[in-house]
Amino acid sequence: MVQVAVMGHGVVGSGVVEVLSQHVESIAKRAKEEISIKYILDIRDFPDSPFADKFTKNFEDIVNDDEVKVVAEVMGGVNPAYEFTKRCLLKGKSVVTSNKELVATKGAELIKIAKENNANYLFEASVGGGIPIIRPISQCLAANDVIEIAGILNGTTNFILTKMIRENMSFDDALKMAQQLGYAEKDPTADVEGHDACRKICILASLTYGKHVYPEFVHTKGITKIALEDVAYAASWGGVIKLIGQVKKLDDDKLDITVEPMFIEKNSQLANVDDVFNGILVRGDSTGDVVFYGKGAGKLPTASAVVADIIDCVKHLKARKYLYWSDSTDSIVKPYEETSYPVYIRLESAIDKQTLTEKIKALFGEVKFLAKANAPENEYSFVTGEMVVAEQQNAIDELEKNGIKILSVIRISDL
Amino acid sequence: MVQVAVMGHGVVGSGVVEVLSQHVESIAKRAKEEISIKYILDIRDFPDSPFADKFTKNFEDIVNDDEVKVVAEVMGGVNPAYEFTKRCLLKGKSVVTSNKELVATKGAELIKIAKENNANYLFEASVGGGIPIIRPISQCLAANDVIEIAGILNGTTNFILTKMIRENMSFDDALKMAQQLGYAEKDPTADVEGHDACRKICILASLTYGKHVYPEFVHTKGITKIALEDVAYAASWGGVIKLIGQVKKLDDDKLDITVEPMFIEKNSQLANVDDVFNGILVRGDSTGDVVFYGKGAGKLPTASAVVADIIDCVKHLKARKYLYWSDSTDSIVKPYEETSYPVYIRLESAIDKQTLTEKIKALFGEVKFLAKANAPENEYSFVTGEMVVAEQQNAIDELEKNGIKILSVIRISDL
Repeated sequence: MVQVAVMGHGVVGSGVVEVLSQHVESIAKRAKEEISIKYILDIRDFPDSPFADKFTKNFEDIVNDDEVKVVAEVMGGVNPAYEFTKRCLLKGKSVVTSNKELVATKGAELIKIAKENNANYLFEASVGGGIPIIRPISQCLAANDVIEIAGILNGTTNFILTKMIRENMSFDDALKMAQQLGYAEKDPTADVEGHDACRKICILASLTYGKHVYPEFVHTKGITKIALEDVAYAASWGGVIKLIGQVKKLDDDKLDITVEPMFIEKNSQLANVDDVFNGILVRGDSTGDVVFYGKGAGKLPTASAVVADIIDCVKHLKARKYLYWSDSTDSIVKPYEETSYPVYIRLESAIDKQTLTEKIKALFGEVKFLAKANAPENEYSFVTGEMVVAEQQNAIDELEKNGIKILSVIRISDL
Repeated sequence: MVQVAVMGHGVVGSGVVEVLSQHVESIAKRAKEEISIKYILDIRDFPDSPFADKFTKNFEDIVNDDEVKVVAEVMGGVNPAYEFTKRCLLKGKSVVTSNKELVATKGAELIKIAKENNANYLFEASVGGGIPIIRPISQCLAANDVIEIAGILNGTTNFILTKMIRENMSFDDALKMAQQLGYAEKDPTADVEGHDACRKICILASLTYGKHVYPEFVHTKGITKIALEDVAYAASWGGVIKLIGQVKKLDDDKLDITVEPMFIEKNSQLANVDDVFNGILVRGDSTGDVVFYGKGAGKLPTASAVVADIIDCVKHLKARKYLYWSDSTDSIVKPYEETSYPVYIRLESAIDKQTLTEKIKALFGEVKFLAKANAPENEYSFVTGEMVVAEQQNAIDELEKNGIKILSVIRISDL
């Protein structure tokens, strides 16, 4: 019998308790030990819970109890989760988590502490909810050089974009609907501004390339400025707009890593990942493209990933799992302005069409103009060839100096 | 330094040698040991290979060399792979394989021998080529009850069906093209008759439900009788025809397991898995639907999965991996005639339409007739409600007794 503690009894935490208590037998079979919850940590009271006797408000109960071998940290946020995790690891307890913010900002340090104390720090649930992705990347793809990872990593924004694409709903209305359905929080900033997706691509990049990539070094753009006009132009181009977290290894060993909305071709595997679903594409030199698809969030999917990690810790109480990356600085990330890709631009201009076209060609080289039904007379949109970001920006500045109003700039993906 | 042997230098075997020799450093880092190939077993000569000095034609060299700790069996077929695998395991050597025929027919026995000799028998490459699926099912989904697995498990047949669906190519022409492109063998029986997909769904079912499911207990139907007319009717119904291997756990703990072509709705995740790609859907009670997608075959994808297993064996030379199922009889499989589902039927009849319609309704209950452009005047097709297979068969027999010619019978999936 192995005793575990669950820190946090919110959506995921209560799911962990539910999954552990409803699959006792099959979990014991797989872990080769029975797993029993000794403590549930929460500052709130849950007098009606069938597990009422296990609740504590005092973290010291958990950290000081030598019987507790594995702790599930499902509180979210950096504080106090960071301190609690660190102290548990220092005591040699293994910690599993769904807390992507903590892994993305403190992962290297916590993994190191785990290693030094012969414990495990596992976080399958931090990316893709119930979709197995951390293990497949670290184990099954061990015989590959991973060239690129690209994913739809945030269900909330994917739901909103799907509503905009399929039902011509405005961003504001789609966000409201997501909030009503419980897919988006009251303060949706972390989702719609891309921070959540950024944390996840940072975790995947760190794991894949062995060095911690911190969110602050990653160019991150959300979907709040996507207009229905852009959705229509994307369709006329032959694709859809998706919020993509992407990392590629470059020839100079630096990483091209970004989170931003992108035009994706309709026949790309990620173009059909809709609603609250996540899809993650891993491109290996041997395997080619492998795609993982499923619900990226939600109580039970995420909880089941946390429990799978608990089982793995119980199976490896003595032998450590190999899951490691070292600390690093911003030097592994190629500065965003130096990266290059094609871009879609929508603008409003009173200049006559021929003069404008010449101006655009002079600044951007050959471009492809897009058309859509019912476009205002003075609206133009076009797609450039591959251009360095700094040069894109210079060209855009030049247009603005000529009194042209830039309405949208969206990356064209190579997916 | 750990010494390994590769048995078989065909497509996959030469790929294993290539992957091992081209990723020496990253593999050593992940395995925490350098991995070196000591022997390559093949009855043919490869004088120009850079590994010419490692070739042997004598299996005894490998099995009797105590330095060899891990053996990759990539010969295919049951004999002599079965004997060779058994003898290696009995000597305490771990064996990894891409040989789905051997795992599907002898898995329970070989896993048992591995366990008794404190060795591992791993077969990630046997299903889905380079797509990680065996590990995710056995590990990440440990906290789930798996309700159902359904997959497009054979790339050759999926390529043929895709050509039929997208380019209106006949089965014969599509098969010829697959053979020219190297996707199908000269004798395509194992692929087009569904045997290959059957072996794979048996492996997934055995792993998931803990008891060996033998191919001979599984109702298996290939795609050789699918006509372009059926493809057109499937489109008018709102879907496509795919060869699906499927297993569901029933309330009485029996398994409903089959391989057959099915009508799949267009918006199903599996409907968009095209060409030589594989897609595997795993439905868990906690995770919901998770889909794994990628190239299900090919030299390097499959080889990289074999090498990932070699790495895992090297990491677990002392501690066994938990991957186990017990032997069983046909009693765990629900007899096919007792299972039930809706079905599509196409027929030719000279009887007047009203009489025929009444006859069909009397036999099948409410049905939905399908239409397609340019259908011959005496051709009819319809979709029934859910019906027990034995009753479907009785009704079909009754139609035939009335001089009606049955042209096609295809299952309607619930995917």
